[in-house]
Amino acid sequence: MDLNKRLRNKKAFDLIMTAEEAANLIENNSVIGVSGFTPSGYPKAVPLALAERGKKEKNFKLDIYSGASCGPEIDTALTNAHVIRKRLPYHTNPVIRKAINAGEIEYLDMHLSMSPQYLNYHAIPNIDVAIIEAVAITEDGHIATTSAVGNTPSFIKNADKVIIELNVRKPLELEGMSDIIILDNPPNRKVINITKPDDKIGTPYVECGFDKIAAIVVTDLQDKTRPLTPVDETSKEISDNIITFLKGEVDKGQLTNSLLPIQSGVGSVANAVLYGLCESDFENLTFYTEVIQDSMLELLKCGKAVFASATSLSPSPDALKIFEEDINFYKDKIIFRPEEISNNPEVIRRLGVIAINTALEADIYGNVNSTHVSGSKLMNGIGGSGDFSRNASITIFTTASTAKDGLISSIVPMCSHVDHTEHDVMVLVTEQGYADLRGLSPKERAVKIIENCVHPDYKEQMTSYFERALDNGAKHTPHILEEAFSWHINYKNKGTMKL
Amino acid sequence: MDLNKRLRNKKAFDLIMTAEEAANLIENNSVIGVSGFTPSGYPKAVPLALAERGKKEKNFKLDIYSGASCGPEIDTALTNAHVIRKRLPYHTNPVIRKAINAGEIEYLDMHLSMSPQYLNYHAIPNIDVAIIEAVAITEDGHIATTSAVGNTPSFIKNADKVIIELNVRKPLELEGMSDIIILDNPPNRKVINITKPDDKIGTPYVECGFDKIAAIVVTDLQDKTRPLTPVDETSKEISDNIITFLKGEVDKGQLTNSLLPIQSGVGSVANAVLYGLCESDFENLTFYTEVIQDSMLELLKCGKAVFASATSLSPSPDALKIFEEDINFYKDKIIFRPEEISNNPEVIRRLGVIAINTALEADIYGNVNSTHVSGSKLMNGIGGSGDFSRNASITIFTTASTAKDGLISSIVPMCSHVDHTEHDVMVLVTEQGYADLRGLSPKERAVKIIENCVHPDYKEQMTSYFERALDNGAKHTPHILEEAFSWHINYKNKGTMKL
Repeated sequence: MDLNKRLRNKKAFDLIMTAEEAANLIENNSVIGVSGFTPSGYPKAVPLALAERGKKEKNFKLDIYSGASCGPEIDTALTNAHVIRKRLPYHTNPVIRKAINAGEIEYLDMHLSMSPQYLNYHAIPNIDVAIIEAVAITEDGHIATTSAVGNTPSFIKNADKVIIELNVRKPLELEGMSDIIILDNPPNRKVINITKPDDKIGTPYVECGFDKIAAIVVTDLQDKTRPLTPVDETSKEISDNIITFLKGEVDKGQLTNSLLPIQSGVGSVANAVLYGLCESDFENLTFYTEVIQDSMLELLKCGKAVFASATSLSPSPDALKIFEEDINFYKDKIIFRPEEISNNPEVIRRLGVIAINTALEADIYGNVNSTHVSGSKLMNGIGGSGDFSRNASITIFTTASTAKDGLISSIVPMCSHVDHTEHDVMVLVTEQGYADLRGLSPKERAVKIIENCVHPDYKEQMTSYFERALDNGAKHTPHILEEAFSWHINYKNKGTMKL
Repeated sequence: MDLNKRLRNKKAFDLIMTAEEAANLIENNSVIGVSGFTPSGYPKAVPLALAERGKKEKNFKLDIYSGASCGPEIDTALTNAHVIRKRLPYHTNPVIRKAINAGEIEYLDMHLSMSPQYLNYHAIPNIDVAIIEAVAITEDGHIATTSAVGNTPSFIKNADKVIIELNVRKPLELEGMSDIIILDNPPNRKVINITKPDDKIGTPYVECGFDKIAAIVVTDLQDKTRPLTPVDETSKEISDNIITFLKGEVDKGQLTNSLLPIQSGVGSVANAVLYGLCESDFENLTFYTEVIQDSMLELLKCGKAVFASATSLSPSPDALKIFEEDINFYKDKIIFRPEEISNNPEVIRRLGVIAINTALEADIYGNVNSTHVSGSKLMNGIGGSGDFSRNASITIFTTASTAKDGLISSIVPMCSHVDHTEHDVMVLVTEQGYADLRGLSPKERAVKIIENCVHPDYKEQMTSYFERALDNGAKHTPHILEEAFSWHINYKNKGTMKL
């Protein structure tokens, strides 16, 4: 293997060691910052070695900060080894989810745009060691990131030590696709000079230097990105409803046929929604988003979309293969930015992003729960949905109207946890239809949501709640507090929200 | 009265008419945009004439958009005359509050930064007539606003007709204190080039032109700003706790002695909090806020603060007198901006504003309710608190730990309405102490809030809820849904939250 293309200074070769040796450089009770965003661009070998160390060493504990979700080499392995004490700002892993809900791990569920800011403001304990996946290290010891930028720039800036996983499996062509900038803290922060998704304002490398690099571990491990489930009928209907809504906006002259830059959440439903755009009449679409999934690659490929700005590329294993084979096609159509920039309110509001995110549940007044099952049990986290939904020109939330074969209504009288408030949610979409809530009072929203979005099986029951709430007291946001969670409680006790 | 100084084109004189005549230019079912923000800079004579018209004309209905809260000439008079059909984006008036909660008026409670954006995006019905208070009309028919800018620029831009109330009581020295800019809609929106509170980026006038001006009504009515209640012991203790927290940040080197630009909500408590700064060791303070109240004028006067950017000046009647007498002192220390700018996430996050806002209730996990009593009854609205709290470098919420002589605990197991989520609230302050929630998981927050912020009378009861919730199921955000609102329900049934 010719490492000279990827390690451009002799100093680098002296730092090469095994994952175990690198893991042993980390002291107990350290705060670790790992590269990556969604299961993409995250370190694998050193975390696995840390997990092994955790199995042997009594009370070996680490706080783990990341960009967003990581692969199982971090969240599964380190959870199973009981190494993680605190975790932030986001995860999507079933093993750590169970440990968080069992009270074994303290989890801080943050707006992703805020996570580097908390670090740079010293509002959370500082990073001791950053573990960063790289495709190359420059002559000056600066880092070319792989398929995700995430919080890597801020982690490296703040860390005492940096451990690099040089991943030789990742194509060197990724170099140059990142646009790196770190914002100064106020009062010295400057304008973020992005007025179009493809504006470049930074450097292709993360500043580091050999003084900080404590170890280089050479790996060839592939990201464990998630396969996508096939597009089902419900997702297709949700997608159709979104496109109908957007077409209506174009027809009214409120949007052009190129819309505005789109942000879309992650996962099979989100991906299915975007696939719908392939067959739409829209053209020259752009994305200003967090994660590039299969559908976006396809939209770029077929020419329907012209550019995607993101912080991470996280396609299915199949699509990843296609991307890597055709990387020179994509290279000038994609930018990876730090999540401080991809998720920054300044840029999102300026560009007028159209934000499409998934709700776990929504209520009749337009509040959205993205994170907690029945108010207590964490699913994943808010991720970047708040950064986008609060600042978008149009904020869309989608959910299937029911879950668990119809035993759960995703639209409830009152959300058991609120991540996106009535002030933020503009359009609610289910497979039943869409409710454009803009300009409506809470009562007007309830009427429209019940009519357009609630599943027929729950309409009568919801109408009954709303009508009785209207007679119950103050009529701005009518509720019956004694009954507001009765659907959730009924599900817990009887296995169905049907009363 | 020499009007030539204020009306600088002969055309203006031809447009002078009575308030009644101007009110008669407005068609039934119109959408009206009124100037002003807080009871300051709002039109008075024409709204009073519209109320009279409403009393005589059957089913005379208007939708009223404003900058924020207005004086009684609008919200009391037009409510009592049954003229208002829909009202947005904010109010603080007891008469309209009653009508909203009685279901007589549809009210849309919006993030203030979003209200001009909704209008400019045509996401809400357009303004037919703008009624704007002015100190002068230029030769070209452009408008010099009075003591508030609010949404005036966007209202004039979008209105078919503009009615001016030329208020000759307001000092002409106000001219030049406003910095007017209207943001283009995406994809053409540019950077907002403010990097310090005193940066000027616009023009001193709102563009209008004589073609749009349908009437000029000359008035000399004073704003009905609210007198402030004297600083009570509880407010003083809250203020002391905030200052202790901020001093701690300075001692840790996280802030300089000039802090960062401060935003403070409106009202007697907020004002009392800022009075505490007069006796602090901080210096060269600045404000990037919505409203200038008595305390800020005093901080500027004594030299403790050096500059205030706001969208409105709304001091008590006594302080207003002092301001007007000494306007030349204040003139270069204050800028009034459109609320699209004063409240813009881009600028707030860039400047690293320290946001201090009031909670109606908060829960043990750090969610804040700013708007609804017991989940249904509207108080005022979210106003700009979301614009600031989501983007501030430090987000502080204050509340007295109890209300109604101790019968209500302002800290509850679960908020009955959420305006600011657990992801947004960094520091919670009551007269009991402060809880710095940054970096804490939900459970860690609960422990700290119960320990530092809950009133002693409710500590045992709250600890009992939290401990039983911990045994109840998922442990990320422990709750007992059957009991989450029991404190509110107990208050309704028994007049106390004490169980």
